[in-house]
Amino acid sequence: MRQPDVGPALRAGESVRGTTSPNPPVGCALYRPDGALIATGATSPAGGPHAEVNALRRAGSAARGAIAVVTLEPCNHTGRTGPCAEALAEAGVVEVIYLTEDPNPLAAGGADYLRSRGIEATFAPRRVKALDPWLSSVRHGRVSVTVKFAASIDGFTAAPDGTSQWITGPAAREHVHADRAARDAIVIGTGTAIADNPSLTARLPDGTLRRHQPRRVVVGTRDVPAGNLSRLGYERYGTPEEALEALWDTGARDVLVEGGASLAASFIELGVVDRVQAYLAPLLLGGGTGVLARALAPSLSAAPRYQLVDTATLGEDVLIEMEKECLQG
Amino acid sequence: MRQPDVGPALRAGESVRGTTSPNPPVGCALYRPDGALIATGATSPAGGPHAEVNALRRAGSAARGAIAVVTLEPCNHTGRTGPCAEALAEAGVVEVIYLTEDPNPLAAGGADYLRSRGIEATFAPRRVKALDPWLSSVRHGRVSVTVKFAASIDGFTAAPDGTSQWITGPAAREHVHADRAARDAIVIGTGTAIADNPSLTARLPDGTLRRHQPRRVVVGTRDVPAGNLSRLGYERYGTPEEALEALWDTGARDVLVEGGASLAASFIELGVVDRVQAYLAPLLLGGGTGVLARALAPSLSAAPRYQLVDTATLGEDVLIEMEKECLQG
Ligand SMILES: NC(=O)c1ccc[n+]([C@@H]2O[C@H](COP(=O)([O-])OP(=O)(O)OC[C@H]3O[C@@H](n4cnc5c(N)ncnc54)[C@H](OP(=O)(O)O)[C@@H]3O)[C@@H](O)[C@H]2O)c1
Ligand SMILES: NC(=O)c1ccc[n+]([C@@H]2O[C@H](COP(=O)([O-])OP(=O)(O)OC[C@H]3O[C@@H](n4cnc5c(N)ncnc54)[C@H](OP(=O)(O)O)[C@@H]3O)[C@@H](O)[C@H]2O)c1
Repeated sequence: MRQPDVGPALRAGESVRGTTSPNPPVGCALYRPDGALIATGATSPAGGPHAEVNALRRAGSAARGAIAVVTLEPCNHTGRTGPCAEALAEAGVVEVIYLTEDPNPLAAGGADYLRSRGIEATFAPRRVKALDPWLSSVRHGRVSVTVKFAASIDGFTAAPDGTSQWITGPAAREHVHADRAARDAIVIGTGTAIADNPSLTARLPDGTLRRHQPRRVVVGTRDVPAGNLSRLGYERYGTPEEALEALWDTGARDVLVEGGASLAASFIELGVVDRVQAYLAPLLLGGGTGVLARALAPSLSAAPRYQLVDTATLGEDVLIEMEKECLQG
Repeated sequence: MRQPDVGPALRAGESVRGTTSPNPPVGCALYRPDGALIATGATSPAGGPHAEVNALRRAGSAARGAIAVVTLEPCNHTGRTGPCAEALAEAGVVEVIYLTEDPNPLAAGGADYLRSRGIEATFAPRRVKALDPWLSSVRHGRVSVTVKFAASIDGFTAAPDGTSQWITGPAAREHVHADRAARDAIVIGTGTAIADNPSLTARLPDGTLRRHQPRRVVVGTRDVPAGNLSRLGYERYGTPEEALEALWDTGARDVLVEGGASLAASFIELGVVDRVQAYLAPLLLGGGTGVLARALAPSLSAAPRYQLVDTATLGEDVLIEMEKECLQG
């Protein structure tokens, strides 16, 4: 058969982002030898079955003789669920194509196990965006951190009089909400919690809640007055370090720091920011509140540099995404 | 015949940007009825033939029966050259497709003239980037102004210690030099002239000069010490208003303001900036020299807003282009 389509597996993994940690959001698709799609599966919340097992269950006896596409190398360890490599073999799958290798020494070895059972296991390297934060968290042994800001094209998040609604338009705001729904947690500083009375929920344009809601986290020691956060519930940590440790220990792997300028600078200075998302609006302010509360480096050569990974037009605005290092490909 | 390809006419017009003012950089392509390209032509420097006449001369007798694609409606007035509409008719062209309408009441009417001669004249609206500045200059009765800056993603053109080389990489710098070669003039303030000893030439990556060099213009009253500018020659005006008037009177229509932060703010405050080019590098500074020397508005609603027209990836950097209003399409 020709190389099967990787789209269904990628989309299955993408659909469960934010709901699987500490497990990775993996997608799996099973194909008949003639190329017809049999079933897809994605990682269930922690404690539940992995993507391969969900796909195999849906396929039932049709899995015999099937070809599997999995976004991550099937695991080979018995955690809360049995090893996926074994489940694929038992179900009679004849070939497994995986798009990223498992960097976790505990879980790796799935491909070798499959080969030992006479199953063809092919590594077909491909960037799987849904796995970026999880891969980064495994590599660094800490939560993956994305810093997001919305600013004018000359770098101001608010005008001199403090007005900031709305710098970016509806398409950018909708993108932020969809992104929140794909994260384990949203983190802000007490400054933003006090100034903005934010909900930190992931909403649809009509205001209703999206299916997955991230954890709401506030960092700092000041009192947060009663408001949306106290109504909805939130976690509080005294410092960024404490927040990172507690989030890791409670299973979070992918968090979004939404500001403000002081907290964002603190996370960058800690050296834990893997990704930056700049939502830029086509206007010039010339003054106001900057993206970061303080200079990060005295000279250009000492400033944190990133790799551009993506640019997108969102209505009238632009989203620029940058990464500290290229994790895949 | 099917709609002929507009590419050759667009490219011909693009190739003479910066060399035709006060005339527009127009491109023309002539096709045989079977669709074969006969010849192209572009506007010569002021006083020379227009695009249509250059294409007709190259085509010679092959122009009889041809279809012409012109990026701008053929002119209908006898200036320093005869009217192009007449030249097309005399040469035996049977159909003229033009991509933009001539907003100049003195020159307009070419399409009507062609129709009166029994020639099909079709307006096929299309954005012609090469004509943007000229169209803007005609509409506003002043030079078209583009403000360009190179900054970190959070809006700093230099680090706190003043280092600014190189915020953007080689691909972005090459793009700036190609852009300079398509302008009538480059304008900077005395601050930049004194601090940077710039050449303001349009160079190839190997340092050699490009074919077309823009006029070099410095605005302000302070003395500029002997250096590259005095060696190469430059014009000096006391204020932005004086510069705009003198440039218009001497035929310039399309100028690029390259900074610094004070002069860029002055041009924006004057309300004469049609276009903004932001070259953004994927790094965060958090402090340093801002893009503009002062706030343009106290509140968000009063800030100058633009329309996003283009984003491009240039090596590791991003170019975002915005316009004050949409001139075409
Ligand atoms: N446009 C955007 O993208 C965007 C996004 C978010 C917010 N904002 C705006 O930003 C403004 C608030 O920003 P802000 O800078 O004042 O506040 P902030 O960054 O939200 O919060 C600052 C607080 O966070 C805590 N913190 C930060 N770094 C710390 C560290 N290293 N260790 C311990 N605690 C730390 C401190 O809390 P304690 O002092 O309580 O200990 C500090 O006062 C608001 O007006 C909001 O609207 C804009
Ligand atoms: N990254 C970039 O894109 C970029 C580009 C260019 C420059 N730069 C940097 O910017 C720095 C210089 O910036 P700058 O702000 O100090 O200087 P500047 O903007 O280049 O020049 C300022 C001078 O321009 C004249 N001027 C400005 N507005 C005026 C007005 N409305 N009326 C009359 N004159 C006016 C004044 O000249 P007089 O005082 O002489 O009368 C003023 O002092 C340099 O360090 C340079 O490296 C960066």
